[in-house]
Amino acid sequence: MTERPRAVVLLSGGLDSATVLAIASDLGFFCHALSVDYGQRHRAELDAARRVAAAQKVVSHSVVPIGLGAIGGSALTDPQIPVPKQPSEGIPVTYVPARNTVLLALALGQAEVIGAGDIFVGVNAVDYSGYPDCRPEFIAKFQELADLATKAGVEGRSAQIHAPLISLSKADIIRRGIALGIDYGLTVSCYQADDAGRACGVCDSCRLRAEGFRTASVPDPTAYW
Amino acid sequence: MTERPRAVVLLSGGLDSATVLAIASDLGFFCHALSVDYGQRHRAELDAARRVAAAQKVVSHSVVPIGLGAIGGSALTDPQIPVPKQPSEGIPVTYVPARNTVLLALALGQAEVIGAGDIFVGVNAVDYSGYPDCRPEFIAKFQELADLATKAGVEGRSAQIHAPLISLSKADIIRRGIALGIDYGLTVSCYQADDAGRACGVCDSCRLRAEGFRTASVPDPTAYW
Repeated sequence: MTERPRAVVLLSGGLDSATVLAIASDLGFFCHALSVDYGQRHRAELDAARRVAAAQKVVSHSVVPIGLGAIGGSALTDPQIPVPKQPSEGIPVTYVPARNTVLLALALGQAEVIGAGDIFVGVNAVDYSGYPDCRPEFIAKFQELADLATKAGVEGRSAQIHAPLISLSKADIIRRGIALGIDYGLTVSCYQADDAGRACGVCDSCRLRAEGFRTASVPDPTAYW
Repeated sequence: MTERPRAVVLLSGGLDSATVLAIASDLGFFCHALSVDYGQRHRAELDAARRVAAAQKVVSHSVVPIGLGAIGGSALTDPQIPVPKQPSEGIPVTYVPARNTVLLALALGQAEVIGAGDIFVGVNAVDYSGYPDCRPEFIAKFQELADLATKAGVEGRSAQIHAPLISLSKADIIRRGIALGIDYGLTVSCYQADDAGRACGVCDSCRLRAEGFRTASVPDPTAYW
C-alpha cells in the first residue's frame, strides 16, 4: 500500500482557505494545515481555522506566530489604520505588505520539513484583484523561486504550489465547497469580527462573502453582530 | 536639499550583516535595520544586532518575532537536532528551511511600509555554498518576485535587492568591514553562543569566521567560551 502524498494547506479560517482544504483532501492528500498568527485584528479567524481544521480532520495544524505589527502598514495589523466601511478603489488599505510572500515562504519551509510535495493556497484573483500578490503571475513566479530556494528544489523535487481558486468567483467557490460538504458556518471572513466570530457585514470581505452566497443561491450561514 | 534614500537592511547580528549595514550607510542610505527573532538557538545574535544597530546609528531597528519552531527541521530552531561540531557535506542541518525567503519577504513588506526603494541582505554564496537560498540565482529570482508581489512593484518602483557580499570570501568581507570602521567585537556568528555572546569555536560558523580573520591578517576580536 502506497502512502498517500502529503500537502501543506494554508488555512486562514476564512471561506476560501476552508474550500481549498476540502479540495486538497478530496484530491487524496494527507493535509497539514498551516495558519499564521500575524497579529491580525480579526483574531476570530484563527479560532475558525482551528474549527475548520478539526472538522476536516487534518493530519496536523500548525499555528506560526509572526509579529507583523513591528512592521505595520495595514489596516489588518496596524490599530492606527481603520478598516474601511466602503468599497475602495485600487489596492485596499487592508492589504498586508508582502503577506502572501511571507505565507508561501512559511508553507515552503514546512513542506520541506515534513516532506510534502504540494502546497495549497486560497488566493483568488477575481474578488481581490486589488491585491498584487493574489494574481496568477505572482503564484507562477513564487513557484520559480521555490525551485531555487530549498534543498528539495535543488534536488529537483520542489513543492508544487496550487491555487485552485485563483480564477473562480466567490459564488463558484461556495458552490464548489457546498458540493464537498463544507459547513461555512465554521468560517470567518470579516476583517473585524468580534471575539465570538460574528461579522460586521459592512467591510469589503463581508460584502464579497454575502454577495457570493446570494449569487450562488445558497443560504448564508454567517452570524452578524 | 533632497532627502537621502531609505534602505531596509536585514541585520542578524553576525559579521556579514554588520558589514552590509556599514556598506549601505557608506553608500548614503538612511538605514532601517530589520532583525527577525525566529527562535534561533544563538539568541545572543539578537543582542549583537541591537549593539551593531546602535553603533552604526541606524534610523530604526525593528525586531519581528516569528515562531519558526512550530515548523522545526533545523538545528538552529529545533532543540531535537544537535549543532554539528564537524564540517558537514552538502546542505548542513543548520539550514533553516526557506529562511531567506521569509527574511526577504519581511524586508519587502517593511520597505513598502516605510517607502524604502532598496533592501540589503548579507547572503554569501562562497562560504555557505551549501545553503540553496544564498545563491545569486535565488536573489535574482526574488527580485523578479518582488516586482510582482507588492503595491510598489505594481507601480513600477519595486524595492531593489542588494547582496553586496554574495561573491566575497569571508576574508574579503572582513577587510571591507575593517576599512569601514566596523568593530567586529560587537558581532556574534556562533550557532551556539552563550548568553554573553561568547562563541564555541567549533561550529561551522565559528570556523569560517576564525579562518576569515586569519586569512585577512586581522586580529580576531571574538570572545570564546
